[in-house]
Amino acid sequence: MSQPQSITRVSIDLDQRSYPILIGSGLLGDSATYADVPPAASALIVSNATVEPLYGAQLQEALSARYRNVHVVVLPDGEEHKNWQTLNLIFDALLHNRCDRKTVLFALGGGVVGDMTGFAAASFMRGVPFVQVPTTLLAQVDSSVGGKTGINHPLGKNMIGAFYQPRLVVCDAATFETLPQRELSAGLAEVIKYGPIADMAFFDWVEANQSALMARDPAALAFAVRRSCEIKARVVGQDEREDGVRAILNFGHTFGHAIENGMGYGHWLHGEAVGCGMVMAARLSQRLGLVDAAFVDRLTRLIERASLPVVAPQLPAHPDGRSNADRYLDLMRVDKKAQAGEIRFVVIDAPGHALLRNAPDDMVRQVVDASCH
Amino acid sequence: MSQPQSITRVSIDLDQRSYPILIGSGLLGDSATYADVPPAASALIVSNATVEPLYGAQLQEALSARYRNVHVVVLPDGEEHKNWQTLNLIFDALLHNRCDRKTVLFALGGGVVGDMTGFAAASFMRGVPFVQVPTTLLAQVDSSVGGKTGINHPLGKNMIGAFYQPRLVVCDAATFETLPQRELSAGLAEVIKYGPIADMAFFDWVEANQSALMARDPAALAFAVRRSCEIKARVVGQDEREDGVRAILNFGHTFGHAIENGMGYGHWLHGEAVGCGMVMAARLSQRLGLVDAAFVDRLTRLIERASLPVVAPQLPAHPDGRSNADRYLDLMRVDKKAQAGEIRFVVIDAPGHALLRNAPDDMVRQVVDASCH
Repeated sequence: MSQPQSITRVSIDLDQRSYPILIGSGLLGDSATYADVPPAASALIVSNATVEPLYGAQLQEALSARYRNVHVVVLPDGEEHKNWQTLNLIFDALLHNRCDRKTVLFALGGGVVGDMTGFAAASFMRGVPFVQVPTTLLAQVDSSVGGKTGINHPLGKNMIGAFYQPRLVVCDAATFETLPQRELSAGLAEVIKYGPIADMAFFDWVEANQSALMARDPAALAFAVRRSCEIKARVVGQDEREDGVRAILNFGHTFGHAIENGMGYGHWLHGEAVGCGMVMAARLSQRLGLVDAAFVDRLTRLIERASLPVVAPQLPAHPDGRSNADRYLDLMRVDKKAQAGEIRFVVIDAPGHALLRNAPDDMVRQVVDASCH
Repeated sequence: MSQPQSITRVSIDLDQRSYPILIGSGLLGDSATYADVPPAASALIVSNATVEPLYGAQLQEALSARYRNVHVVVLPDGEEHKNWQTLNLIFDALLHNRCDRKTVLFALGGGVVGDMTGFAAASFMRGVPFVQVPTTLLAQVDSSVGGKTGINHPLGKNMIGAFYQPRLVVCDAATFETLPQRELSAGLAEVIKYGPIADMAFFDWVEANQSALMARDPAALAFAVRRSCEIKARVVGQDEREDGVRAILNFGHTFGHAIENGMGYGHWLHGEAVGCGMVMAARLSQRLGLVDAAFVDRLTRLIERASLPVVAPQLPAHPDGRSNADRYLDLMRVDKKAQAGEIRFVVIDAPGHALLRNAPDDMVRQVVDASCH
């Protein structure tokens, strides 16, 4: 068990649902990390086939100090498994192990594990406590924070789920040592996101420290995680259930979800689709007259330097014979932000500020066509 | 469209989640009933193959005055269909019809339809509004009120779900005209329940008016619905998420769920299992020295006069060769009230008052054996 060095604490303030994000190296395997999690007879670690062999034993040992029975369930890895069948493996494990209403779930893995574990915790016996232990950059800077949980439906991403807050988020920087480079890049997409929507000083910092981030400099990654969590905490604290401002966190996600769903879950990583989606959303912002070409170029370059795709894919042809741009439009109409069939895009109206806007279908088609060159 | 006569209003007070229960005859088909439900472009009526042909058109017409698109999805009827596969039919309908975050769901049917529609509403896009339009006595006096939603798991009843409150409950007495007698009896089980746990004056009234209730006297049924809803509203208002007192509403349900699950969902109606379960729970209360034989006899007679079973079934043999009583114990250990493997029973400690108690396994076996004679 490694001893943690300095620990940074970011708070999510949501009245009785408030909780801390702990950021540091070596936290995951230290039983003291979990001191404030509710006591129970049993805990269930939910992980996947990639992460469990790396960190499962460490977490299990740390939890054994607090829970009489620590069970483990290992899910298949990948966005294509973020569905009911996989979710049911968690319920099966809970019931076969006679877990009860006090059992605490621990999500050990990336965004998919976190989203599914959170939804399982929200739904098992109508709600049990859970803890996020994100092991990817993307999960640490975005998906583990804020209580969005859920699974995909063949017709749309994250369509079935709950707002359900964890009791604690544990961001252990040591897990970056085992993160594949492609996953690191995917996480940087969400880090980059926070600049254009909320904080251009952070955008400047990411630009200046891009090489250090790509080289996994611990101090650079620690700051990126902390600042991302601070921005997300502020936004979520204002609007837990996304009735308003929280929607700006979906910058790049409307186009991105269309790519993920249209290409088939599991082909593009979520962060890759978001990276490309941000380029498309920036172009749409430009066509709407909100930002200039220089801003779009600057954002595009940063995304490209993070080894993320900036050219959008031609989606596989559909039996209905619709054009590629119309396929994008069809997929985006089932976005959760859509209302009465109108797609609402997160656009940048000034660097560091975002809002929701409709856009004419023709303009969206032009953006898709220009982005799929 | 029939004109409603007098309308009784019972309020569920849960701060910003408060809502009314409207009780009257002819409410369902009157568009004025839904005046305070949030506006939206679309609504989805969820019903089943038995109820939709009877009341679907009426409700659809009433809603067409408020919603541009009123879609309908018809589920198979019965507790054995209260599972993920059937729930998914609701999500499919929502997504195929391009419903959005404001779409309102209307549950038109009994407890199974209400529980599944509520859970679908809780989970679709992480939460959309829903309205309960219960068409059985059981749903009007119990399951449609209080926000318990969910589905069954092969290993336990209602194991997966959410606390999610409707915006309105519409109890239309006219629906009793088409209710099969067996369903009426099942509903009376939940009506009878409120006396021993909370209000012996109501128990006296039910005893005195049993014949009128069985004969569907409108005034008797109207009072039974109203008084049941008032008691449930008071308990739920004190403890929405069943951290304490709300558990008493599960009187008879621990034994009852074991019967339902052990016999295979769909063989016993929920109300029938609860009726028999109350006899068993009363006998357990007696063995624990809390009530006398006269009370148990009085309750048993009332349940029997409602044409409900008072003899517990022998559960089908299990490959593991466990005795019938042990099968009951095994099934009850996965009850949501259980903690760390200890079953907690709702027992009557004085007529009109209930509490949660553990009981020795041997005593429970004796109750099972005595009840399965």
